[in-house]
Amino acid sequence: MSGLILHEDPRSGNCYKIRLTAAHLKLPLERRSYDIMKGETRTPEFLSNISANGRIPVLQDGDRFLTESNAICFYIANGSDLIPDGHYDQADMLRWMFWEQYNHEPTIATLRFWMRFVGLEALTDAQRMQISPKREMGLAALDLMDKHLAERKWFVADKFSLADIALFAYTHVADEANFDLEAYPEIVRWMERIMVMPKHVELDG
Amino acid sequence: MSGLILHEDPRSGNCYKIRLTAAHLKLPLERRSYDIMKGETRTPEFLSNISANGRIPVLQDGDRFLTESNAICFYIANGSDLIPDGHYDQADMLRWMFWEQYNHEPTIATLRFWMRFVGLEALTDAQRMQISPKREMGLAALDLMDKHLAERKWFVADKFSLADIALFAYTHVADEANFDLEAYPEIVRWMERIMVMPKHVELDG
Repeated sequence: MSGLILHEDPRSGNCYKIRLTAAHLKLPLERRSYDIMKGETRTPEFLSNISANGRIPVLQDGDRFLTESNAICFYIANGSDLIPDGHYDQADMLRWMFWEQYNHEPTIATLRFWMRFVGLEALTDAQRMQISPKREMGLAALDLMDKHLAERKWFVADKFSLADIALFAYTHVADEANFDLEAYPEIVRWMERIMVMPKHVELDG
Repeated sequence: MSGLILHEDPRSGNCYKIRLTAAHLKLPLERRSYDIMKGETRTPEFLSNISANGRIPVLQDGDRFLTESNAICFYIANGSDLIPDGHYDQADMLRWMFWEQYNHEPTIATLRFWMRFVGLEALTDAQRMQISPKREMGLAALDLMDKHLAERKWFVADKFSLADIALFAYTHVADEANFDLEAYPEIVRWMERIMVMPKHVELDG
């Protein structure tokens, strides 16, 4: 695997997951930047040549274009210690990654996007009415994570894996959506364990 | 792998994915039924003993409880021809399964749930305001699937895989959310290919 190109918006936590995975693997990535606020992933060129889904991240590997952040992490981490041994533990890792995309990203990441990048005054009425239910679901997600981490250091199989990377991406910036992370001491300790790892990179890197 | 117990609501497409996968594998499943409309997955007993996430499906394998429908399918299909060979194709299969949980299930399945089980008159104002954006996103999801299938018989690697099962579950009942599937001829042909397979089972089975 070489010559990989990451099509990204550098502010996106979904794109950051891939850069963080690549950093732990010491895998070089060429980065191509798109501004989603300017619709740069919805142009006819992007839809035809990069991804018909009109979203970043997209990983280009030769003439193949892979989408979905967690699938891309799974692809580049093949054979590494970021994927646990054993099929049950691999399924359990994927379980947290599916949970992240269903329960965590649409709540915490969406609220962060609205509050930090779109601006509350620019939201539609339909979006504004989702703030409260999304906040409730985001709090429930953080609560579940905190309880899970009370009994273990990492999400799966007693070791750092893609599940931790996927969940770290938007958890560590949840304060940008006005979630008070100090209320979740186990999450704080888990984030600290990740941030001191020698190969760690920052979101705004 | 034996003695598996599926904790499910039989009306749920997410639970159906697992039964359909198990049918193709000729893998027996003991089924335990919960009525999500009556809150039977939010009781203290369920939260303590089955899943802290309060949702079905949950697969019980001895003393292990695995959640997230697509992770469960990945687990039980280990080593079978429902998972393609080759790491890129496996990642591409997961890509469609992540896409299903992010773009397809929260739109088409949620609208089906609201229209068929909750009833439009019982929705909250916040839910009612999501009907139109969810319909737009559901139409976009079906459109993307139809275009993808115009050039191939199956979603990934030219063969029937978990990606097809995950996407079939809620697509084939999209009419219950008033989506007109006749507008997507490639999807209709793909569904017909699935429904005539000898080991196929129905959602209401």
